[in-house]
Formats: sequence, structure tokens, C-alpha cells
Amino acid sequence: MSADMSVTDMKGINISHNFDFSLLPRRAEVIEVCPRDGFQNVQTFIPTAQKIALLDDLAEAGFRTIEVTSFVSPKAIPQMADAAEVMADFKRRHGAIEAVALVPNVRGAEKAIDAGADVLNFVLSASESHNRENTRRTIEQSLSELAEVCRIREGKKGKKGKKIHVSVATSFFCPFEGEVSGDAVLKVVERALSLGCDGLSIADTTGTAHPVKVRDTLRAVRERYPEQKIVLHLHDTHGMALVNTLVALGLGYDAFDAAVGGLGGCPFAPGAAGNVATEDLLNFLGCLGIETEVDFSKVLAVAQSIPGRLGVPLCSHLAAARACKI
Amino acid sequence: MSADMSVTDMKGINISHNFDFSLLPRRAEVIEVCPRDGFQNVQTFIPTAQKIALLDDLAEAGFRTIEVTSFVSPKAIPQMADAAEVMADFKRRHGAIEAVALVPNVRGAEKAIDAGADVLNFVLSASESHNRENTRRTIEQSLSELAEVCRIREGKKGKKGKKIHVSVATSFFCPFEGEVSGDAVLKVVERALSLGCDGLSIADTTGTAHPVKVRDTLRAVRERYPEQKIVLHLHDTHGMALVNTLVALGLGYDAFDAAVGGLGGCPFAPGAAGNVATEDLLNFLGCLGIETEVDFSKVLAVAQSIPGRLGVPLCSHLAAARACKI
Repeated sequence: MSADMSVTDMKGINISHNFDFSLLPRRAEVIEVCPRDGFQNVQTFIPTAQKIALLDDLAEAGFRTIEVTSFVSPKAIPQMADAAEVMADFKRRHGAIEAVALVPNVRGAEKAIDAGADVLNFVLSASESHNRENTRRTIEQSLSELAEVCRIREGKKGKKGKKIHVSVATSFFCPFEGEVSGDAVLKVVERALSLGCDGLSIADTTGTAHPVKVRDTLRAVRERYPEQKIVLHLHDTHGMALVNTLVALGLGYDAFDAAVGGLGGCPFAPGAAGNVATEDLLNFLGCLGIETEVDFSKVLAVAQSIPGRLGVPLCSHLAAARACKI
Repeated sequence: MSADMSVTDMKGINISHNFDFSLLPRRAEVIEVCPRDGFQNVQTFIPTAQKIALLDDLAEAGFRTIEVTSFVSPKAIPQMADAAEVMADFKRRHGAIEAVALVPNVRGAEKAIDAGADVLNFVLSASESHNRENTRRTIEQSLSELAEVCRIREGKKGKKGKKIHVSVATSFFCPFEGEVSGDAVLKVVERALSLGCDGLSIADTTGTAHPVKVRDTLRAVRERYPEQKIVLHLHDTHGMALVNTLVALGLGYDAFDAAVGGLGGCPFAPGAAGNVATEDLLNFLGCLGIETEVDFSKVLAVAQSIPGRLGVPLCSHLAAARACKI
């Protein structure tokens, strides 16, 4: 920080932060998760062709990585019953884009590999209660499944290129247990890395994280794993997704999940709002002078097309504002 | 800031901000503006008794200052046709609460004084085009009106206790001219203070300000006027109201306008979203450990009652989330 950081440098006025935004990362990666996190919260089944058409438009916007679908039980989440078809089709059309599939267990991982996913995003929670609701397993059982998924990856001929990421749900708050400690997150992260996972995401599943909590947990994780690629997955339930993004950027985090149109939620976290809208995040990063690989105007156009295409309302500040030409 | 502020103190990871929230102001003032900024954007006339009932509930929540109404032409904004009645009734019932009236000109100021307002909030814009749309005057003509309002305050027998605040609209962006320079804001602020106004508010009328712009303008104003009480008035068009609040807090600002339920907008700034919702702001300040004089649960209850009472939707993250019990 520059020299003018003293707390009382202007005639007694408390100037506590310099906000030298030039010290933030110069580039950030934005990972589009609407086709998974957004779609899974749409009650009416979206026809496969419509899913693929929206994925085509997102691919066109320049994302390097897209979370394409989720290999979960179709009984639990009927919206994802066509996961294999969507994934295979996406890879045929957009082979160069890294295609992520969420998987909660071994069975999902096998299906995802067979369908051509590049990355298996294995989800487990930092809180026992949410892990049980979300995956019907204890955290320990989920970790055993993760170990098995890592073994499968090694064993499947020609599948060694597959990456395994671990998404740590309820990393800040749990809808059933309340505040989640940084230690609980670190414990899961440590086990996941020791099992051989390639990447991590820290998820604010409830969307109720706030700057103090985000700072504490992200700093603890970063101090323990300074070189590890870590994605931040924020929902916007309390309207703090962007301020939490700023805190993460300030700690050197530079990869963020987001969902076009602000769709999303969690079927097992009642009341959680959607993901931070991709267009809101891109606009925010742009205002801070942080570059991404994504074409903002194309993303905004996709967002604006969503109510007509999917029959669901947007949860996006920017798309709503642009509808009024601001 | 503490000693761990170096930019590359963790094995090459860019840790650019310490986010020592304990250095932020310990207390902040929240000024409720829904009865003015919120109501004026409700298309259907709200019966006077309903306005007063909602004001009673807000008074009960503990606000020290409430913007009660606006003395504007009823032709321009029919919703405010009962301004005198609302103000007089409010002062009868809640004499201890500082009652603010927005006034755009001398005529409005006289009516506000007669009705018993404690504070005249004189509005003018930092950008010519918006000032003309909003008040049908050039900035220079508005400043002349302000001078006249200051003279009236001195002249009116028994009215010497009235305060005059100046609200600088479009302090960051103008819906017609785009970005507004910090110099344009300083120019208006300087003139207003030289005419004898007692307080100031810096308004993001379009709700499109972002952290870099907010930092630059607020720092420039604070450097020039380190001791002046200045209120920040934020709208949430781009979802950045809370991150902008953090930047303002970091620069020592500790007074914020907000509207219960997130109602509001500007009749002459098409597409601008509502004010930051009071409940979202209070929740945010609470998370940062910053105290206010206001009872959060009472404010939230008022917000939740608004759709039923006024027939308008909420623009509040928290009220929406609480409706789902998160």
C-alpha cells in the first residue's frame, strides 16, 4: 500500500482504507454456472435443445470454462435427467471449452466421464447437516466417495486428463447449523487436496456471507495454500456478493463462479437467492479495471433473452436496469 | 493499518488489502428516506392516513432523522400533494425526530417551514442536464434559489432553528451527460457551503456509481472539507450500493440515506433503481460491527408490510430472503 495509509492523516478524520484498486489482480477468470446451478432451480423441465442453445450462446461469449450440467439422481433433480446428452453434445460442439460437470458421488462421476466432461466438480459441504441433506452422506462418507472418484479417474483408460475439483458448499454459513468455522472448511480442503483433487471452490451456498466472514475464511485458506487455484462461488441472498468479491480480490483470489441472469439457488438451502449474476460481476470487474476473457455485451444479451426463453424472471441488477435503458 | 499490509507477503500471492474492519467508524447514522424518495415513485396516490401510519412505524423503529415528504409542484409529482398535511401531522406526533423536507425552490422551502419541517433538503444536481430536467433551472439559477432560501430562513420569525441541507444529485453519473467529474461536485458543494447551508448529501441518483468513482469523488470532497457532515445517498441500480458503502465507510463517512423496502428511484432518471434498502444496509452495517440507532427487526417488519400496505413490490434482498426464512 502507498504511504498515505495512516489512520488519521486528514485532520482527525478516520481514513482507514486507501482502496488502492491498482493492487487488485489485473485479470480474473469468470466461470459460467447457470446451465448447472441456474437450470437446476428452474421447476419446469427445460427441453434439451433449449439447454444446448443457451450453452451455445454462452460458449460464443468467450468463457474458457462452463459448468455444463450435473450428474445427480434424476429423482432428486429431474431437471438434470438429460445430463449425459447435454454434456456429450456440448463437447461435440465446443471441444475447446473446459466442460465441468457437478458430481455428488461415484456413480455421477462415472457417468460424467463417459459423457465427456473435462472436469468433475465433486460437491461436499463443510457442515454435516447440509452435506447430509444435499448428498445423503456424512462428510466422511463423501470424502470416501471422493477417494473412489480419484481412483476411477486413474483407472479409466484414456480418461487420465480428467480434472477433479472439489466444491466446498456451506463454507461460511449453513442453513441448518448457522455459522461455519474456518477450521471446518480447512479440514475438508486439506482432506480433498490430500486425496489428489486438482482444484477447489469455496461456496457461499446460502448467500449470507459477509465481508468479515469472507475475509477470515479466505485468508485462512490462502495462508495455508498460497499457490492453490481456488474459485469463489457466491450467491447474492443479502446483496453482498459484489462486496464479498472485492474482499476476495483484495486477498488475491481471481476466479469466480457466476450465473447469467442471476439464476440459481440450492434445492437444499431454502430461501437462498441466485448466484451473483454474471453480467453484474463482469460490470463490477470492468469498473475496477480487471479484465476477463468474456464478452460483456454477449453475456448481457443472453441474460436479457432468458425470461423469453426459459419463462423465469431474472435476478440481475444490470439486466433489469438495461431494460429501462440505464 | 497493521504491519501485515505488504503487497506480496504470502509467498508471492498478491495480498493487496488488509480489510481491517475495526478501523471503520464504530457508529453510523441511517436516515430513512422512503416516505419521500420511495413514495414519490409509487404511481398510485397513497392516502394521507396510510403515509402517516407508515411514518409512525418508522418513527417507532428509532430513526433520529426521517425525510418525511417533498414540497414540490403537485403537478410534477402528484404523490406529494399532501406534503403540508403529512409534515404537520408527523411533527405533532413525533416532535423529537428531525423531520426533513425535500425542497427544489423558494416556494417549496416556504411551505416546508410553515408546515413545521426541521430541515430543508434543497436539491440541485452536479450536472446541468439533470438539474434542468429535475428542477427546470440551470445550476446557477438553483444556487440563486438556495441563496434566497437561506435568506428566508434568517427572516422568518421563530424559524431560525431550521437547518438547510443541500443534496447534490448526480454526483457520480448523470443519465444525460454520463460521468460527472469530482470538480463539478466540489464546485456545487463549495457554493452551497458559502451560501450558509448546514449539511450536505452526495447522491448517486442513477445508482450506477462504482467503487473507483465513489472513492475518487468522496476522497476529494473529504480532503477539501474534513470536518463537514456529509450524508451519502446511494441507489442500487447496479448492485453496488453496499460495496460503495464500504468504500465510503473506509474514507470515514458515517451517515447514509436508505429507504425501507428498497423503494425509490428518480422520476427524472429513467431506469434508476430504488434506494439501498434500509434493512439491507442495517444488516450490512451490523455484519461489520457498526452500530446504529435503529431497531433492525422493526425496520424489517415495516419492509415486509409494504407490499400489503402499498401494493408495490419490494426491492430488498433481505426482505425477499426472510420471506423464505433464510
